[in-house]
Amino acid sequence: MIVVMQARASDQDVQHVIERIEELGLKAHPSRGIERTVIGVIGDERLIKREQLLLLPRVDDVIPILKPYKLASREFRPNDTVVDVSGVKIGGPNIVVIAGPCSVENEEQILRTAEGVKRAGARLLRGGAYKPRTSPYSFQGLGVDGLKLLALAREKTGLGIVTEVMESAEVETVAEYADLLQVGARNMHNTKLLRSLSRLKKPVLLKRNFSATLNEFLMGAEYLLSGGNDNVILCERGIRTFVDYSRNTLDLNIVPAVKQLSHLPILVDPSHGTGRQNLVLPMARAAIAAGADGLMIEVHPTPAEAFSDGEQSLTLDAFDRLMKEVRSVAGVLGRTVS
Amino acid sequence: MIVVMQARASDQDVQHVIERIEELGLKAHPSRGIERTVIGVIGDERLIKREQLLLLPRVDDVIPILKPYKLASREFRPNDTVVDVSGVKIGGPNIVVIAGPCSVENEEQILRTAEGVKRAGARLLRGGAYKPRTSPYSFQGLGVDGLKLLALAREKTGLGIVTEVMESAEVETVAEYADLLQVGARNMHNTKLLRSLSRLKKPVLLKRNFSATLNEFLMGAEYLLSGGNDNVILCERGIRTFVDYSRNTLDLNIVPAVKQLSHLPILVDPSHGTGRQNLVLPMARAAIAAGADGLMIEVHPTPAEAFSDGEQSLTLDAFDRLMKEVRSVAGVLGRTVS
Amino acid sequence: MIVVMQARASDQDVQHVIERIEELGLKAHPSRGIERTVIGVIGDERLIKREQLLLLPRVDDVIPILKPYKLASREFRPNDTVVDVSGVKIGGPNIVVIAGPCSVENEEQILRTAEGVKRAGARLLRGGAYKPRTSPYSFQGLGVDGLKLLALAREKTGLGIVTEVMESAEVETVAEYADLLQVGARNMHNTKLLRSLSRLKKPVLLKRNFSATLNEFLMGAEYLLSGGNDNVILCERGIRTFVDYSRNTLDLNIVPAVKQLSHLPILVDPSHGTGRQNLVLPMARAAIAAGADGLMIEVHPTPAEAFSDGEQSLTLDAFDRLMKEVRSVAGVLGRTVS
Amino acid sequence: MIVVMQARASDQDVQHVIERIEELGLKAHPSRGIERTVIGVIGDERLIKREQLLLLPRVDDVIPILKPYKLASREFRPNDTVVDVSGVKIGGPNIVVIAGPCSVENEEQILRTAEGVKRAGARLLRGGAYKPRTSPYSFQGLGVDGLKLLALAREKTGLGIVTEVMESAEVETVAEYADLLQVGARNMHNTKLLRSLSRLKKPVLLKRNFSATLNEFLMGAEYLLSGGNDNVILCERGIRTFVDYSRNTLDLNIVPAVKQLSHLPILVDPSHGTGRQNLVLPMARAAIAAGADGLMIEVHPTPAEAFSDGEQSLTLDAFDRLMKEVRSVAGVLGRTVS
Repeated sequence: MIVVMQARASDQDVQHVIERIEELGLKAHPSRGIERTVIGVIGDERLIKREQLLLLPRVDDVIPILKPYKLASREFRPNDTVVDVSGVKIGGPNIVVIAGPCSVENEEQILRTAEGVKRAGARLLRGGAYKPRTSPYSFQGLGVDGLKLLALAREKTGLGIVTEVMESAEVETVAEYADLLQVGARNMHNTKLLRSLSRLKKPVLLKRNFSATLNEFLMGAEYLLSGGNDNVILCERGIRTFVDYSRNTLDLNIVPAVKQLSHLPILVDPSHGTGRQNLVLPMARAAIAAGADGLMIEVHPTPAEAFSDGEQSLTLDAFDRLMKEVRSVAGVLGRTVS
Repeated sequence: MIVVMQARASDQDVQHVIERIEELGLKAHPSRGIERTVIGVIGDERLIKREQLLLLPRVDDVIPILKPYKLASREFRPNDTVVDVSGVKIGGPNIVVIAGPCSVENEEQILRTAEGVKRAGARLLRGGAYKPRTSPYSFQGLGVDGLKLLALAREKTGLGIVTEVMESAEVETVAEYADLLQVGARNMHNTKLLRSLSRLKKPVLLKRNFSATLNEFLMGAEYLLSGGNDNVILCERGIRTFVDYSRNTLDLNIVPAVKQLSHLPILVDPSHGTGRQNLVLPMARAAIAAGADGLMIEVHPTPAEAFSDGEQSLTLDAFDRLMKEVRSVAGVLGRTVS
Repeated sequence: MIVVMQARASDQDVQHVIERIEELGLKAHPSRGIERTVIGVIGDERLIKREQLLLLPRVDDVIPILKPYKLASREFRPNDTVVDVSGVKIGGPNIVVIAGPCSVENEEQILRTAEGVKRAGARLLRGGAYKPRTSPYSFQGLGVDGLKLLALAREKTGLGIVTEVMESAEVETVAEYADLLQVGARNMHNTKLLRSLSRLKKPVLLKRNFSATLNEFLMGAEYLLSGGNDNVILCERGIRTFVDYSRNTLDLNIVPAVKQLSHLPILVDPSHGTGRQNLVLPMARAAIAAGADGLMIEVHPTPAEAFSDGEQSLTLDAFDRLMKEVRSVAGVLGRTVS
Repeated sequence: MIVVMQARASDQDVQHVIERIEELGLKAHPSRGIERTVIGVIGDERLIKREQLLLLPRVDDVIPILKPYKLASREFRPNDTVVDVSGVKIGGPNIVVIAGPCSVENEEQILRTAEGVKRAGARLLRGGAYKPRTSPYSFQGLGVDGLKLLALAREKTGLGIVTEVMESAEVETVAEYADLLQVGARNMHNTKLLRSLSRLKKPVLLKRNFSATLNEFLMGAEYLLSGGNDNVILCERGIRTFVDYSRNTLDLNIVPAVKQLSHLPILVDPSHGTGRQNLVLPMARAAIAAGADGLMIEVHPTPAEAFSDGEQSLTLDAFDRLMKEVRSVAGVLGRTVS
């Protein structure tokens, strides 16, 4: 932490800050510059709060130096984490594609989709049983019946299941069925849910909130890691900006940024990230080119009939095309898709 | 709903859309323009999904006409809703100030704050017992012990209690203690929590998520109203923008916008909204001038020692000054503060 | 400037940075912490570029300490600057209102507006002769003829004239007519224009760009001040965010922030800031309550007939109402409006 | 244009709007729905202004149907435009890379860079002679001397020259030297400059403003096209969002969106778009995968010594690596890079 004094701070003001730093059990290291004095704080700055220094007289600013996350950082763990989802490895050289409908609607829909996406090369099946919807009048998911249909699809196709869990009270139930539990963007800040999931051994897919900074995103992962669950996979799914031609702004820049700062794998969801069917394919290719470890794609046999998010769902044919193109781009980067 | 056809759509394409609209049980009303044809959809557009028409051939766009919320709209209820919080009326001519610390820390702190803010004119006491924190290493609140301390403060001062509830499993416990249950910004989209609260009779304070549009904010209220709880109070608390001199960007424009579109009362929280002690007073005055029905202010006896959010907390003296200035501005608008 | 080394930096890496700092003519002041070393740079950091240190091996970050602006800062000039616009003082205890149409359209329109806004209490008349329009098919202003009509309105009413100048080649012409030259939001970054204006003695109104940070805004002012023109007035007019119920998001938080960091006066334009007639009045009151030194308001005798920006223009009657309310709010803050 | 009436609008209110539409020379086409009436406006809606209808009594909203741009739209010109820049074709199957330093600094720097980027496969040389800088204390470019050095580099290497023009007064001078004139992000809204450039026959590279919507971006192009200059190339270079780990947020989503709506070629500048050296390579690959027609890359022989933007500049070696990877990704899409 660096304390920046105001230009008009007196020697006494500086002394006062130094004493406070020492009272807090840390060491102070002042540098008197020409225009102002700055004071370095030596010791674990995570033990004190910025305000303890910021609110002292004639303090202009207090600048943190250390990243707020530890376990999620590449400094802590230099090698890439590879998460095993019921035998499917995410974070290694192989790129993994998760595909399926926004919501599980009925047996025919989920089986038909599962078989189709498997044939095209997806390794995991997504499908929502509990749905966080903006409107109370929209379809809210089939609940446990949806989970059972997902389990049936797994049985028939061998695909592992990825599905969202919305609150800590449901963690146990969802964990019974899912191979990979998804925390949706709206719940990235739900610390109760994160704490419950941190006590599981099952892997967790943490989607970025639409307004989360990189620090906040990695702090969400830190909740999971610090509770003892090392099986964390990140997922970018679009942020909220002024842009209006896509429902969200898919932020691919975060992919190489995460790779530099963290050891965790990161996927990209161009379906939610753009909200438009006709942007999904080019942005899926771009995600792989940017270095993503995999994709999450919404697929529906008949998008116009989907109970939710039809606007951004691909048909099975379009998904097949996407897989082919993604495979080519992956090949160029020396990665496989299988 | 208005279906806009592409310029190159043929008569047959238009006919196809009309048939689909009729199949869905609604009426179509085409207008052939010079550059393109648009088709009005007559009937309750909330019964169909945009995608059912958007994904048809040669459709360029589908534009909703109706607002997605009903019960929260001023068209549904033209007169201002006044919510009674244990005798304190919010939404009428009187402006109500809620004040207190970010977190309940101990008996001395909460009692001293409660007495101080009451003396200055606050009518309700805020204080967090369950805290959603960005870092797993930060103080997470005292839990039930915090609720008990709040109840003690109520007993000693007569101030009603406002405190946050973080998940549906805790609604019952929090409702035992609180006079007004707060849904924090991070939980505005937590539909499970909103559904639980909609079955209570107790009033709910719904804070705007940092990236919520006005429609999404009112849809959060719609969850509460549609479940049967009419006692909903909105609260603006800052949005996420590119701006970096305030922690959030307090968006006062939403105050008159809500007043035009909805009958619900709206408060403003300039403490979280700006994140900076020295912006709280001017923005509190501005909030009242913009037409807010009240304020929510963080106050701490010794902000530099606060367990959380000290940077934006006022001292008791500063809060007293704020109340005086707020009262003057309110007077000019023909409103009281008591 | 503070150089933060990576955790894995060796003593040699640190030494290398120190040597580079000294080569650049500054002094280095290293602090070896537990997790990493930071190096303070003593001397005028504005003389070197961040990259000169950031790109050295094992450097994690380089954090500037000094603000990039000097002449615009309150540290440089502690007292409020008061700018004299042909006898109207802006920045003192008196609040000044600038009003008028978006574009000058014809003699009748500008004279009728000028007389109306003067009667209601405006001190300066705004009106665009050169208009930066999003569409090449929209009305682009009357040019010099517009300036002449403004001069005529000044002659008839005694109101000083505020009008936009769009490029350096037009500065001389506009300066002949205007009492206060306006740099529009789209031109805040136009350094050629700012340099030309910095050589004038006439006052300049600098509007904030829709995506300008506070630092960038004050750096725009620094261009004017550093060229020798001290007569700079700032104006907030709305920023670009995800919000869609107002055309822009009027950011009143910048008003107290500017007051703390700078000595320059700041006005608020709630007409462009919200883009909606029915938000102008409440946000004008709020701007004054937040501490603004004045307002800029679009007024048109018949908004529905305006050549531009009718959606946000007030009628003369509505403006009269606004002035009355603004005067009351100003009174509460111990300020006058005249 | 669609006029949406308020729910409480009477028949008379509707009649009043219809009459006004007819007075304006257009036809009205009302649809009486269950909850409200909407009125379609038949005719060229670009001839009237929204406010002419919006401000009538009981009108709730006026929704434009037509896009504001014509000449830039794919409906107007279905085939891709290919722009010829002194023999280098942009917009066809071949991907073109523009590379060079942010600023021209001296003969040795520009020649060494030109030779290096040519060797690696760049077809055009970028370099700023006139620089729009945030700070008046920063290097503002060599002006005409910079243009002469660029011409010298062209002579020695055969690379065409891309350089920025900052105001209409300089168009003639810059056009003498440049093969492709660049409008920087800060000038995308500079309509005077756009009009001057629209009268040239030379190609123009229009960079997206950091807060421009897609409509505004294409309207900038429309200024150029409507003035008679068909040689327009778009360039995405990052937008302003809340994200803080990249200097801007490179918005690749706009690439496929432009391809769908417009016939104009679009390049991507990942150097400005991310502002970080170590994000440039992955985002360059991603841009090509998203469908961009080319790249603009900052390259400097010694980035730490650059007069400007060193933080985001690649060394010649890094640029060579980038070209190799970009070529591979392009190959997968059936495109060449030469």
